[in-house]
Amino acid sequence: MMNFSSQLITDAVSEFSRLPGIGQKTALRLVLHLLKQPKDQVEMFSLVIKKMRNEIKNCRDCHNYSDSEVCMICASTLRDRNKICVVENIRDIIAIENTAVYTGLYHVLGGVISPVDGVGPDQLYIESLLKRIEKENCTELIMALNPNMEGDTTLFYISKKLKDKNIKITSIARGVAFGGELEYTDDLTLARSFASRLPFENYLVGG
Amino acid sequence: MMNFSSQLITDAVSEFSRLPGIGQKTALRLVLHLLKQPKDQVEMFSLVIKKMRNEIKNCRDCHNYSDSEVCMICASTLRDRNKICVVENIRDIIAIENTAVYTGLYHVLGGVISPVDGVGPDQLYIESLLKRIEKENCTELIMALNPNMEGDTTLFYISKKLKDKNIKITSIARGVAFGGELEYTDDLTLARSFASRLPFENYLVGG
Repeated sequence: MMNFSSQLITDAVSEFSRLPGIGQKTALRLVLHLLKQPKDQVEMFSLVIKKMRNEIKNCRDCHNYSDSEVCMICASTLRDRNKICVVENIRDIIAIENTAVYTGLYHVLGGVISPVDGVGPDQLYIESLLKRIEKENCTELIMALNPNMEGDTTLFYISKKLKDKNIKITSIARGVAFGGELEYTDDLTLARSFASRLPFENYLVGG
Repeated sequence: MMNFSSQLITDAVSEFSRLPGIGQKTALRLVLHLLKQPKDQVEMFSLVIKKMRNEIKNCRDCHNYSDSEVCMICASTLRDRNKICVVENIRDIIAIENTAVYTGLYHVLGGVISPVDGVGPDQLYIESLLKRIEKENCTELIMALNPNMEGDTTLFYISKKLKDKNIKITSIARGVAFGGELEYTDDLTLARSFASRLPFENYLVGG
């Protein structure tokens, strides 16, 4: 534990150090930076963080973080309401939104089925997804889960629950990343990319 | 600019992104971490930062950051008041305190003389250092400035100001770092380490 010869600095460093990926040295750098800023700017920093935590909600429909009862995306009249994209968490939504290619709705599961971590279907927002599909006129469910064992288990579980419904279930493509090299691609990805091959026009860069 | 589909999250990410070394992705990771913490914990984070900025002072004597008018080190009765170690900023004090070898007082200059950056002696706490040396019964001034052009200029300036006083002025040793390799040491350091050589017993590792 470093000695800062100030309780005020010690406390602030200790608070910053609780954040993920921030050690004591980085925390100190941030604290010394804030000490050099005008008081009202630091007050604003403090206020914005507190306000965010106190006022954030979960969207009633898709369970995404939201400023109001229904999130901006679910409330938008510009989105295609026939498509629902299923993701693990809000970080995935941000990543997909930044591509600007998807205009449908989302559904946040809040995790994936993982027996090892003790996460079963009941701890996820799967029931509410099924109810939502009934209610809304959803024609395609796009599964955008991470390509690993837990993602696949969850994908399989949800597809089984929906097998009697008249709904198309797709998954985002998995394969060798654009700009990646075959040589450095893991065996499973490479093997699966053979099994899932499509006419080459589908995959032209910039196509 | 990433789209977070929440103004609360957007504002918090933007505040974190102003901190040095924190980009938007890191800021988002910190924000999502805070959203998962209990409200009172985030409130505490917010409060501690604000309190620190509002209540921090500069020590009347050494200009170090301080919780009160005089800092913990200057106020301590356990410190050797005959020695004053001159440093550029509080980070240097923290580094030196962590070695636990120095028991004297400090004096923070608040920078170093740097004509290129437009920093002259008047912008630094040099006048107050000279007054302090008069007032306190200081017998040794230990210069712990960074070994570069600006550090040397400052060292030289202060030593000239004190040449008529009966005070010993020393500098912390400069040379090849312990654990370092000659091969990768820059020319200036290596050349100076020849000029400043001492009987080898002074430099034995663990000696």
